[in-house]
Amino acid sequence: MTAPKLTPDRQRILCIDLGSSSLKIAVYELGADYEQRLVDGGIDRLDAAGKTLNLTDRRQSPARERRYPLGGGTPMATLLAALADLDVPIDAVGHRVLHGGAAHEEPARVSTDFLASLAQLLPFDPLHLPGALAAIREIAAALPQIGQVVCFDTSFHHRMPAVAQRLPLPRELFAEGVRRYGFHGLSYESIVSELGPAGAHGAMIVAHLGSGASLAAMRNGKPVDTTMGFSALGGVMMATRPGDLDPGALLYLLRGGRYTPKELDTVLSQHSGLLGVSQLSGDMRTLLDKRPTDAAAADAVELFVYIAKKHIGALVAILGRLDTLVFTGGIGERSAPVRAEICAGLEHLGIELNAERNAAGEGIISADSSHVIVRVIAANENLMVARHTYAVLFAPGVDRAPPPALANAAVS
Amino acid sequence: MTAPKLTPDRQRILCIDLGSSSLKIAVYELGADYEQRLVDGGIDRLDAAGKTLNLTDRRQSPARERRYPLGGGTPMATLLAALADLDVPIDAVGHRVLHGGAAHEEPARVSTDFLASLAQLLPFDPLHLPGALAAIREIAAALPQIGQVVCFDTSFHHRMPAVAQRLPLPRELFAEGVRRYGFHGLSYESIVSELGPAGAHGAMIVAHLGSGASLAAMRNGKPVDTTMGFSALGGVMMATRPGDLDPGALLYLLRGGRYTPKELDTVLSQHSGLLGVSQLSGDMRTLLDKRPTDAAAADAVELFVYIAKKHIGALVAILGRLDTLVFTGGIGERSAPVRAEICAGLEHLGIELNAERNAAGEGIISADSSHVIVRVIAANENLMVARHTYAVLFAPGVDRAPPPALANAAVS
Repeated sequence: MTAPKLTPDRQRILCIDLGSSSLKIAVYELGADYEQRLVDGGIDRLDAAGKTLNLTDRRQSPARERRYPLGGGTPMATLLAALADLDVPIDAVGHRVLHGGAAHEEPARVSTDFLASLAQLLPFDPLHLPGALAAIREIAAALPQIGQVVCFDTSFHHRMPAVAQRLPLPRELFAEGVRRYGFHGLSYESIVSELGPAGAHGAMIVAHLGSGASLAAMRNGKPVDTTMGFSALGGVMMATRPGDLDPGALLYLLRGGRYTPKELDTVLSQHSGLLGVSQLSGDMRTLLDKRPTDAAAADAVELFVYIAKKHIGALVAILGRLDTLVFTGGIGERSAPVRAEICAGLEHLGIELNAERNAAGEGIISADSSHVIVRVIAANENLMVARHTYAVLFAPGVDRAPPPALANAAVS
Repeated sequence: MTAPKLTPDRQRILCIDLGSSSLKIAVYELGADYEQRLVDGGIDRLDAAGKTLNLTDRRQSPARERRYPLGGGTPMATLLAALADLDVPIDAVGHRVLHGGAAHEEPARVSTDFLASLAQLLPFDPLHLPGALAAIREIAAALPQIGQVVCFDTSFHHRMPAVAQRLPLPRELFAEGVRRYGFHGLSYESIVSELGPAGAHGAMIVAHLGSGASLAAMRNGKPVDTTMGFSALGGVMMATRPGDLDPGALLYLLRGGRYTPKELDTVLSQHSGLLGVSQLSGDMRTLLDKRPTDAAAADAVELFVYIAKKHIGALVAILGRLDTLVFTGGIGERSAPVRAEICAGLEHLGIELNAERNAAGEGIISADSSHVIVRVIAANENLMVARHTYAVLFAPGVDRAPPPALANAAVS
């Protein structure tokens, strides 16, 4: 199939979301008043043997599923070859990157200097950042003529009030960057965009509940506070991560060398949360299926709901009132029982669900009599990345010359 | 002065509250319908040179202040000698002990077996427990004929629902004892006792705000949840402790050996919280004095208030409503501005202060129109210890024979 001719201002943007264990991609064709998803897909488990890139080509109806085994190739090489095979030429690449530190308030064009500044954040995010840097360099080498943009999950929260950014630790650590950054910013931004100014008006909490999970408090769509902090381990309970903890429990586990810090990192990143409590699975669907007969699965779901409920109460205490509650993320979008159980008992905050609407997963799931409008909205981080990339590289007045080559020095 | 003769059921009980940096004591004379404080005082800074035991003898009016320099003596030896000097014979000793672990639900009589079981908790509380064990042994050696009782700050919370005791960590750690215990239990118990069943009826939060701080949620005086967890480092921000944290911030500080776990323990126990953020003081009075001209002092107070407010919101989300809010502890009892700032913006929970009553520190500081009754009550942990000690050793039917001598084995 031959690619259709693009109008001058339409650009095809490859969006790359490279997590620690999975890759999600999408190709959007974007123009001034035009947004079309052409391809999406990814690699479910980057650590699996015989891994495969699964793509869905949406340029035709019905959409066509394609599978590209990686063999010995890297994920990026396989992806670029697959897009060539599908005849989807790319005009730009946008990357979702977890941690932008204190310096990166906005999406930014990739350059040698930019990568050097990003590499300084490696101590803050040693898990995800090396992979992102490598992917950017691999694409720059393969497609030197196109521009790349990095969008940070921290940027949305950058203008939170100072008190929400501060941690109760020695002050010099704040100056060094040990502060609350907040994550899932592209998801929150996508919800605010979807709601528009009227829908996001007033005091709102967005609960992004997926295998990673956080909640954000906003006033008129502007960030007020969020549950995740310095890293993606904090805040509410997640699939395999605990969220905030009594630091004394960690000191106990470190005492006498029982765990090294590195082993403790593994326990907190991979073996805690829903998986840790259930000893069964970090997947909410599995736990909901099993809980009628599995007490540990029931404990895990109960604690997840309990902690999320507490954080809603905490954020409303900061907002002073609540007008809108939005559920998003895999669990937030698809798990009606979890939504119902989180909202149960929050009538004092003005939250009242309509059971039928919630079970059906309608856009508004609150009762007509509820003071708080409760919504379910699908987050679309990739579209946010595509829009930012378009704006940085192709907005009117931007220089469209091919990017200078990346120097190899200093960053690996 | 000669001690008055006691009626048969009146007993003089020495209450010992040995913290990591201070000693607080009281002697109560207790009977079936009789409670009289005879002496109180303590040592402000156990780590100071030239430290002094300050006692107030309240058997006469006006009360008489006495100072006993420790010289080379231990705090316990100095204390027992001082009480002999004051002619205050002791019939029993009650100890406040921070951590009772999962095994100790109730105050308990000291015996060799009991001390052995207590020593098993040393990994949970290496900071306070060794001193408590040493004090118990020293008193047993000096006064072998009298009974001793240990009262735990964890006991009050022992019957919290299971979900409140669980941490989002691997399940086998819960079985081993890594769970939410909660502390300040003797303070909470004293508030519930002071309020009586009618005053404690319904949904209540008690905010114990001192140099250590926690909040507890109760329903009809029974424990529902609390902010402190496995150790006294967790929950809300304190004088020098941070409260709950994103564990990723701790892993960052441990990375590359920057801090050893032991050094991190010192940072979290002694250099965080109000002191850490202000870089000035962990004392709230000092910070309130300085904040008009010291931005860092203002930041510290602001964050303390902010975090306390969040935890109130979180606990109300669990209770589902709020009927009573009680402030206690040094800050809770004496700092009107902190109470006012915590309550400001919580009108959605039905909290409304009366500014004059709050400034005057009256017993009820809420406005007449407030749905929630907000109270200030002085906690009296020593009296709780005295009552428990009396009940364990002198209640009808209890064997009053002198205690068997403590064996030295196994415990140090």
